[in-house]
Amino acid sequence: MSFNGEQHPGVKQPTAESQGFRLNHTMLRIKDPEKALAFYSRVFGMSVVRRLDFEEMQFTLYFLAKLEADDDVPEDDAQRTAWTFSQKGLLELTHNWGSEDDPDLQYHDGNAEPQGFGHICFSVPDLKAAEAWFDANDVEFIKRSDQGKMQNVVFVKDVDGYWIEVVQADLLGHMGD
Amino acid sequence: MSFNGEQHPGVKQPTAESQGFRLNHTMLRIKDPEKALAFYSRVFGMSVVRRLDFEEMQFTLYFLAKLEADDDVPEDDAQRTAWTFSQKGLLELTHNWGSEDDPDLQYHDGNAEPQGFGHICFSVPDLKAAEAWFDANDVEFIKRSDQGKMQNVVFVKDVDGYWIEVVQADLLGHMGD
Repeated sequence: MSFNGEQHPGVKQPTAESQGFRLNHTMLRIKDPEKALAFYSRVFGMSVVRRLDFEEMQFTLYFLAKLEADDDVPEDDAQRTAWTFSQKGLLELTHNWGSEDDPDLQYHDGNAEPQGFGHICFSVPDLKAAEAWFDANDVEFIKRSDQGKMQNVVFVKDVDGYWIEVVQADLLGHMGD
Repeated sequence: MSFNGEQHPGVKQPTAESQGFRLNHTMLRIKDPEKALAFYSRVFGMSVVRRLDFEEMQFTLYFLAKLEADDDVPEDDAQRTAWTFSQKGLLELTHNWGSEDDPDLQYHDGNAEPQGFGHICFSVPDLKAAEAWFDANDVEFIKRSDQGKMQNVVFVKDVDGYWIEVVQADLLGHMGD
C-alpha cells in the first residue's frame, strides 16, 4: 500500500503471518521511579496500569498508559497483566533497584553520541496550552513551538533527560511540503 | 488511581491539563530505509502511513502503523499528516540522507553502554507461530521463548540492531508473581 504516490523504498505487502501483531510498548530505563512516575503522571496524565517486580533480577517494570474514557482496566492482577500486553502505545519504565542512589548514573538519551533512539512523541489537543502547562510544571524545554526550523513542534526533556516531542496534529498538515 | 493495592511511588492524579494527550510515536534512527522498511513491513506487517522529506535538513521521516481493519487512512497528504499525528503507538523511522553509504555508521541500541532506551515490543496472537515466522525470515534472535529466566518472552533484533520484544498477552498473566 502506498498513499498518494509516496515512495516507500523496500516496503513489502503485509502477509497473514503478521496479522494481529500490535506495537505494544516502548521501554526506557529510569533512574528514580518516584521522579519519573511523578513526571509522567502529573505532566502527561499517564497512569501506571501494571507494576511487575522481579526480585531475583532486582528490577521493577512500570507500564504506563494514557487512559481514555472507554478504557476498562481489570482490577485482577493476572487479567490486568494480560490487558497491559494487549494494548497499543504504552510506555514501559524499567527501574534497576538502587539506581536512584548511584551518583554517577545518568541514562543516555540517544541524541548525544552514540545516537540511536531519538524521542517519544505526544499529540496534544492545544499546543500553546500544553506549553503553558509545561512551564507551570518547570519542564525543561529543548525547543518551543516558535523556535527553530520546525514551527509548531515542541521538544521537552523528561526527568531522565529523554526527549519528548509534543505536537498538535491539525497544525502539521503542511509539514514536509 | 492504583490497581489492587499496587505501590506506584510518586504518582499524581492526572489533571484536566493533560486531557486528550496521546502517546503518538517512538522515533528510531535507521541507517538504510530500504532495509528497515522491508523488515518492518514484511516481518511485523507495518505500513508506511506517511513519508515526510526535509530537503534543507537532509532527512526523511517514515511513519509506520500496524493498521487494523477499521483504520481509515486518508489519501490526501495534509489530512494524512494530521491523521498520523493523532494516532496512538506509531513507529517513526528517521533516515539521515546518505547514512546507508557510511561504512562506519551503526546506530546505538541503548542496551550496550551507554544504556538508555531498551526496546520496542510487539504483542502477537501466537508466540510460537511468530517465532517460526521470524525464523522463516532469518530474523536474528536475542532470546527465544524457552530460553532464559523470562519464559514466553522473545527478543529479536531489527536490521539496525534495535531490540524488539515479542510477547503473547495471555501467556504472561503470572509474570512478576
